[in-house]
Amino acid sequence: MTDNSSLDKKLELLKNFTACDVADALLRLNHPLGGYLPNIVMFSPEYQSGDTKLVGPVYTVKIVPKSDTTSPKLATSYADTIPSGNVVFLSAPPDSINAVWGGLMNTRAKILGAKGVVVDGRIRDLEELRSDGIPVFARATSVLSAKEFTRPTALNVPIILNGNHDPPIKINPDDIIFADLDGIVCIPKDLLEQVLDSCEKHVAMDKNLKNALYEGITLTEAKSIHRKE
Amino acid sequence: MTDNSSLDKKLELLKNFTACDVADALLRLNHPLGGYLPNIVMFSPEYQSGDTKLVGPVYTVKIVPKSDTTSPKLATSYADTIPSGNVVFLSAPPDSINAVWGGLMNTRAKILGAKGVVVDGRIRDLEELRSDGIPVFARATSVLSAKEFTRPTALNVPIILNGNHDPPIKINPDDIIFADLDGIVCIPKDLLEQVLDSCEKHVAMDKNLKNALYEGITLTEAKSIHRKE
Amino acid sequence: MTDNSSLDKKLELLKNFTACDVADALLRLNHPLGGYLPNIVMFSPEYQSGDTKLVGPVYTVKIVPKSDTTSPKLATSYADTIPSGNVVFLSAPPDSINAVWGGLMNTRAKILGAKGVVVDGRIRDLEELRSDGIPVFARATSVLSAKEFTRPTALNVPIILNGNHDPPIKINPDDIIFADLDGIVCIPKDLLEQVLDSCEKHVAMDKNLKNALYEGITLTEAKSIHRKE
Repeated sequence: MTDNSSLDKKLELLKNFTACDVADALLRLNHPLGGYLPNIVMFSPEYQSGDTKLVGPVYTVKIVPKSDTTSPKLATSYADTIPSGNVVFLSAPPDSINAVWGGLMNTRAKILGAKGVVVDGRIRDLEELRSDGIPVFARATSVLSAKEFTRPTALNVPIILNGNHDPPIKINPDDIIFADLDGIVCIPKDLLEQVLDSCEKHVAMDKNLKNALYEGITLTEAKSIHRKE
Repeated sequence: MTDNSSLDKKLELLKNFTACDVADALLRLNHPLGGYLPNIVMFSPEYQSGDTKLVGPVYTVKIVPKSDTTSPKLATSYADTIPSGNVVFLSAPPDSINAVWGGLMNTRAKILGAKGVVVDGRIRDLEELRSDGIPVFARATSVLSAKEFTRPTALNVPIILNGNHDPPIKINPDDIIFADLDGIVCIPKDLLEQVLDSCEKHVAMDKNLKNALYEGITLTEAKSIHRKE
Repeated sequence: MTDNSSLDKKLELLKNFTACDVADALLRLNHPLGGYLPNIVMFSPEYQSGDTKLVGPVYTVKIVPKSDTTSPKLATSYADTIPSGNVVFLSAPPDSINAVWGGLMNTRAKILGAKGVVVDGRIRDLEELRSDGIPVFARATSVLSAKEFTRPTALNVPIILNGNHDPPIKINPDDIIFADLDGIVCIPKDLLEQVLDSCEKHVAMDKNLKNALYEGITLTEAKSIHRKE
């Protein structure tokens, strides 16, 4: 079995869990902040609702203000470069008022086999994004295209999440994105196997714990019975 | 009739009104800010939508950062201590990034007869909360559990709402919570009877006022006819 | 044909496009920020969802804190002054915690033929607003009426949008509001004809461009073919 199909299999298994389960596992593995990328929420297929899960390797796009003339320029539209099976992650400049993702790019991404999109910034053409069907997460919407305001500068490079987080929150190429209605988690690829194992063990415990609650046991008792390790 | 069944009866009558009606009544009674607890919104059963009303006596849980080692510790899970018929109010530390309420606690609260939950902070397991059915209000979601970040320190104590409100907004044990899609109001128990009377009088006036609008009268005239006291 | 029916015809044609299309056209015409009014979103008929479009000439209402005793006072309720076919735009004081728009005013506005409402501030009675059916956009909800907090001071005057925008964002009487689920654009009346022409030309290009994407062409190629001018 190739490395990729083995990765796909793991990601498929991971979909049995939630972003909360994955963050719990990463915290147990001492990964900072459980990989949480705060304050980016599901906008498509619907606003923070439903059982949509977006799981896949990240493909990052670093975006700078147009006023930045020193950062490198890209030769082609970054939407044409998205590898199939990936989750596009766009890092907009802090507090940018324009969208860095919209209908045309989304359709191109979908055609290229992107699994979905996470935007640390704003999106537009929400109606089109929703009709395309691939999940899209963002901070907010806008009506402004990037054209006059921002431009891409680098593909698949390490990214620092917007917001004054201490320590800074990093997204690295090859990381795995897990996003659902509660929020977004970024999993280092090296930890994927351990995250899966930890989720399998602990989510089973918590299912038993929840059943115990329905039998009328206290949460304190239920935890002492079902969460001993 | 016991005091409790008399309270239940009043709360049931109060459900004929809205959070806006209740805030109007409290302002007429010179209660500061009409008891409004700003910027906490309905997340379950749906996001700021539908006719859900959460009405009941508050049961507060004060939560501190885990780094706070001086505040008292609780012996058992606070979810086990929730009195039936109450509205749980969780006060998270300001700007905390983790959830202080999630699926297991919610299920336990529901089993214990809690009417619903208000979180001055973040929640997680939104899908589970929505399937449990009791209303849940919060500032935002998160994927992080409290475990590594925050801990409860006191039950049913007075709470100061997060945000730099001047004067501070207080929630006291025994206050009544009234929450719907517009927002949340905190009613001092001593004012409940007067709030009910005031709502009954003024909402009837405003129903007549609205009917007058449909008959083509101006809002200025309609107010002069239907809001004289 | 009167001027008004000619305007109505143009506004009807404009509804073939989106707020994003209109902002794109305004940017091509060098209008600052493409007329975008950031961070005010659709609350009614639903939260940032569906194909609702609110398009019409603006009718502004400037609101000041009640503590401001020097600004002029209005003799009648401003809800009685709304011209038929207009979009009411309410400018609340920055960071005001109370709603400046609610159920009674909305019903009166609807009866007077208002097309919808945009609030640079908070709204209340969301359930009533949604049942009235005319679109309503705002920053947030509240349970507090304006009564004790704010008051209107001037009708159909120029407005500066809240938020520290540099340069300031202005809304002038006679401007045209275009609002949908992505956000709100303010079109100077003098530019309406050019905006329409520009939308017609460019949206047709982008439809061809999107079709080209579905034929498997790259976004880079598709742009070079379908966006040459």
